[in-house]
Amino acid sequence: MADGNQVWKDPDIGAVRVLLEQFSAIEQPGQDWATRRAGMDAFGDMSPLPDGCEKVELTVAGIPCEKLTPAGADQTKALLYLHGGGYCVGSPKSHRGLAARLAGEINAPALVPDYRMAPEHPFPAAVEDAVACYRHLLDEGVAPGRIAISGDSAGGGLTLATALAIRANGLPQPGCLFAISPWANLAQQGAAYEVLAGVDPMLTKAGLDEFAATYLNGHSVSDPLASPALADYAGIAPLLIHAGGAEILASDAIAVAEKAGLAGVDVRVEIWPEMIHVWHAFFTQLGAGRRAISEASAWMNARLG
Amino acid sequence: MADGNQVWKDPDIGAVRVLLEQFSAIEQPGQDWATRRAGMDAFGDMSPLPDGCEKVELTVAGIPCEKLTPAGADQTKALLYLHGGGYCVGSPKSHRGLAARLAGEINAPALVPDYRMAPEHPFPAAVEDAVACYRHLLDEGVAPGRIAISGDSAGGGLTLATALAIRANGLPQPGCLFAISPWANLAQQGAAYEVLAGVDPMLTKAGLDEFAATYLNGHSVSDPLASPALADYAGIAPLLIHAGGAEILASDAIAVAEKAGLAGVDVRVEIWPEMIHVWHAFFTQLGAGRRAISEASAWMNARLG
Repeated sequence: MADGNQVWKDPDIGAVRVLLEQFSAIEQPGQDWATRRAGMDAFGDMSPLPDGCEKVELTVAGIPCEKLTPAGADQTKALLYLHGGGYCVGSPKSHRGLAARLAGEINAPALVPDYRMAPEHPFPAAVEDAVACYRHLLDEGVAPGRIAISGDSAGGGLTLATALAIRANGLPQPGCLFAISPWANLAQQGAAYEVLAGVDPMLTKAGLDEFAATYLNGHSVSDPLASPALADYAGIAPLLIHAGGAEILASDAIAVAEKAGLAGVDVRVEIWPEMIHVWHAFFTQLGAGRRAISEASAWMNARLG
Repeated sequence: MADGNQVWKDPDIGAVRVLLEQFSAIEQPGQDWATRRAGMDAFGDMSPLPDGCEKVELTVAGIPCEKLTPAGADQTKALLYLHGGGYCVGSPKSHRGLAARLAGEINAPALVPDYRMAPEHPFPAAVEDAVACYRHLLDEGVAPGRIAISGDSAGGGLTLATALAIRANGLPQPGCLFAISPWANLAQQGAAYEVLAGVDPMLTKAGLDEFAATYLNGHSVSDPLASPALADYAGIAPLLIHAGGAEILASDAIAVAEKAGLAGVDVRVEIWPEMIHVWHAFFTQLGAGRRAISEASAWMNARLG
């Protein structure tokens, strides 16, 4: 519970839970999308760009993108970062700080697409846009093995869906995938929904149901490009998954790891005690957020060569 | 399949599969236990003790043990290593090389008990002996946070059961747990039994059924100390689990990780493509075995302080 009586072992997570209450409007059925998107974008104000990180706006295959280039970045590498927000909210602005920090730690420019979102553009628009951005990186001459694809929440699910769509399109896999608190089963299934419902301060099954219905717009929830927890992972790139021990999506991470591992993928999944949905985004306030980004970056660097 | 037509990406695993055929007598229903134990012990001849590693035989609470002390080991640390073998075969001799290598990489003396086995001593004799050895380390003055418990296969399940029994006995948890290809559900359940049955060159459901029946000797398979995939992990030490992408026990690793993560445990699970049951034991022949031991040791060292 997000109440003041809970004693946390982590020294920072209590304060982050208090901070979170500012953003409680994001998952708010009934509120109009413009208001919810503005609330999510305000989250980005918490994390300014690191010193020396350059931001350029560009359009890739018709998709507005931000390119974030850390000082001294290796231009032979690339990070494709897919923001979260239930496929309905979120933007390069809301996730700028997280994407830039991750880019800095793997020393690569980040391409952060403002991919099309529901309700205006339901499934599979987001997947199509992510694949178009990956193809753009290849067309620019970046070797596939030097590209990491990462994303959080819906963007974590989209990271997986993008890797599956890349395979389906006959394109080479990227060097690695890093899914942060992925939302990978849009039917909201898994033990964590029961075990952690009273502990998760951000997400509810009802809120995710609304996002899912809006994104799917009648499309089957069992399509692996929408619910990659159900996919066949044969031939997919090495995969790291992080989930919090206090989030109802923790079972999504586990389900994907089993599917991927049994299909022959190099897979690591970690569940971090007491951590909330996409705790990495709170790296300014949270030592565990900084550690998670740093350890994930070491894992990615080992696979990007 | 362990046939010569399969093309493996790993440069060493094909040769290891050929080597394995020498040990095919171990899981051999109908063969007497003495013969099967001798076959398993012969496995130990593959990995002599590292240079400078000292072996001392001792008795702890009536349990014969080997203590393996790497050159220059930090005597304030300890590794309690629990060998595999279906709770019926295996010994400090069969697993000496693996235990010594792990001990060397965490720079700690290893205590390797020749815990009581079935059919002579069914469940819970093995758990009792493992807990007695842990208590002995505490009595000797080793701080609990400086102790790692590790084991492979049945010894991986026993690692988990020991941590649960330690909690039940009111003893402090160790610093960390490392379960290698743990056998954690003695009912042989999980997707890997179907998906990987044709790929696993070592284990079969029928073979595990025999070991389980022998160990349980009529006791409930649902007892979490026998099938720790079913346990409540609240308060259990940080846990690393390794499983191979070519072993029917891969789902056991996943099931434990979900239970542990949802209970607030610091948990990491990795599935290594193409790797077979307890590939770490083939570290002499297999680069991935050496890497697995090395990476696990880094994880343990970070938690042993």
